[in-house]
Amino acid sequence: MQTIPTKAYGASGSVFNGLKPMDIEREAPKADEVHIDILYCGVCHSDLHQVKNDWHNTIYPCVPGHEIIGRVDEIGSGVTKFKVGDIVGVGCMIDSCGVCPACKEKEENYCEGPVSWTATYNGYMKPENKDFNTFGGYSTNMTVKEDFVLRIPDSLEISAAAPILCAGVTTYSPLKHWKVGPGQSVAVVGIGGLGHMAVQLARAMGATVTAVTRDKEKREAAEQLGAHEVLISTDADSMKAHELKYDFILITIPDAFEVNDYVKLAKRNGVITTVGLLGPYKAPLNNMEVALHRRSVAGSIIGSIAETQEVLDFCAEHDILPEVQMIKMQDINDAFDKMMDEEVRFRYVIDMASLKDDE
Amino acid sequence: MQTIPTKAYGASGSVFNGLKPMDIEREAPKADEVHIDILYCGVCHSDLHQVKNDWHNTIYPCVPGHEIIGRVDEIGSGVTKFKVGDIVGVGCMIDSCGVCPACKEKEENYCEGPVSWTATYNGYMKPENKDFNTFGGYSTNMTVKEDFVLRIPDSLEISAAAPILCAGVTTYSPLKHWKVGPGQSVAVVGIGGLGHMAVQLARAMGATVTAVTRDKEKREAAEQLGAHEVLISTDADSMKAHELKYDFILITIPDAFEVNDYVKLAKRNGVITTVGLLGPYKAPLNNMEVALHRRSVAGSIIGSIAETQEVLDFCAEHDILPEVQMIKMQDINDAFDKMMDEEVRFRYVIDMASLKDDE
Repeated sequence: MQTIPTKAYGASGSVFNGLKPMDIEREAPKADEVHIDILYCGVCHSDLHQVKNDWHNTIYPCVPGHEIIGRVDEIGSGVTKFKVGDIVGVGCMIDSCGVCPACKEKEENYCEGPVSWTATYNGYMKPENKDFNTFGGYSTNMTVKEDFVLRIPDSLEISAAAPILCAGVTTYSPLKHWKVGPGQSVAVVGIGGLGHMAVQLARAMGATVTAVTRDKEKREAAEQLGAHEVLISTDADSMKAHELKYDFILITIPDAFEVNDYVKLAKRNGVITTVGLLGPYKAPLNNMEVALHRRSVAGSIIGSIAETQEVLDFCAEHDILPEVQMIKMQDINDAFDKMMDEEVRFRYVIDMASLKDDE
Repeated sequence: MQTIPTKAYGASGSVFNGLKPMDIEREAPKADEVHIDILYCGVCHSDLHQVKNDWHNTIYPCVPGHEIIGRVDEIGSGVTKFKVGDIVGVGCMIDSCGVCPACKEKEENYCEGPVSWTATYNGYMKPENKDFNTFGGYSTNMTVKEDFVLRIPDSLEISAAAPILCAGVTTYSPLKHWKVGPGQSVAVVGIGGLGHMAVQLARAMGATVTAVTRDKEKREAAEQLGAHEVLISTDADSMKAHELKYDFILITIPDAFEVNDYVKLAKRNGVITTVGLLGPYKAPLNNMEVALHRRSVAGSIIGSIAETQEVLDFCAEHDILPEVQMIKMQDINDAFDKMMDEEVRFRYVIDMASLKDDE
């Protein structure tokens, strides 16, 4: 098998002491695959969770990155959707079982196959081959099945578009699934990488949007993103005054938190959906609050390939872009620290030229 | 104001040592009220929770009972829906604010008024009069606004119908709200007073029904109620084999429990609704399980007056009846003990003649 030497940044083992340069290999594209020269890669909170093994499922070595923008530089013999030179994206998935009920209904992100969908990094390429770990976009190039590659609309600024592939679709999918639109009041909790996309998307969908943040410093930025109102979650009186106000609440907080505080903000029949947290909440859900107004506490994970294309097109149509701060690959560990300290506004994107130029 | 001396059983104070006989007073019916001679009253788990002050909101003295069947023996001058001699029912509510969004949409059970809906017992008759506690159906008679009185269909056996007014509507309302019907797989968790109604109702609505119980002794009874399958929740292998199987899961367990065990049983987009528990779950909900299949964990509380009439009519139409064991009022404390020990099959109903005859 022909392989392509590839520069990457990754974590070599479970004692995490920062990402380091490493050499990996990519396969040359098979008939249904494209090979992508990576230009930009977004830095998602889950990248940090994964390399630190916070979910106890990390396969090492681990090369993170699933908000990938690149240029097709080689295509397999059977590829029909892309040609060399196309600007494309890769999100959180690069494969799925294809035969389960979810895959048949084109909701690959809810794949019920033996290993669920294949994650862009930290995923097994084939269930029968547990030795083959997938490597993500903190690297110079990658090879991906064309069905899991997205078309980047011409009008999208490619240096900023990468976060749409995870932060964008992760918030777009639930907003669409729960039919957010005109006449509805929506609260977006947590104004970071995901939340700052959610505010823009919900606003463009026609909803009245409240940004909920514990950080007063984010008030102005949230308003500029399109929030009609900003609610400071540490202000108990304000929180009390906003009880029973929202049809839909999208929570993007990436760590365990007290969900009952936000349940109370939902109207009768309101839905509270958490997308950032992949683990237990901080304290038991109080069914008294849930049942008294027939609320629902739901969860959602990324979005389908079709929805990922939809949100890219939606962003292009509505002039929505992630707000990004460009970094060099070599500065990733500093970026992780700042992300933990909530200093990023609102997403770091790695300019992959920095890695290609690295000696 | 004319008052009617009334025999009752209640708890006098917060140190609970059983219900005792007490004398209370009822008002003579005003223009829009009917006076009811109480014939039967069901014994709900919440009666015991309330008299023991488990929810820290009990007003003493407390006379429980909100599954009430009786005969109209006097009507106010403006009453149009009932006449003397009618067999009627009273459920969990006897009033609501009437002006909030929920009340305007005839969902009085989700009333957002100053004190929510007025509970049949342990409720304040008027927000401005916090001294006037409502007394429930463990008594010989009561006076109720006609809009909160239900018509009992002629074909329903009145000695068994009382539990429809709480256990029936509490399970009917969510089954209807989440559109349970043919082609759907439904799990009913907890086969007690509420669960044994839910199995019958879901089956009559056309769903494929699994009864989930930790008690192997209930297998046969659950099948007789109409369950297509019985799942024993303490059998880890069986539970594992039933993951991702259900469109809708109705949980009727009345105390704190581990909800994550049941979340796993839901399909993609499945809904888990808890009706028995008015407090926190035992442990934090794991959003990993919720989000990975876009499940929802919801809650529901009793049902509207319209839904209460609907479920009474539905039970009459489909030959559904609660399975009851008739007791005397004087045996209530023994019945509470047996209910705690899960010995009841499936609901105690008090024959109120026993109290009327009491000297």
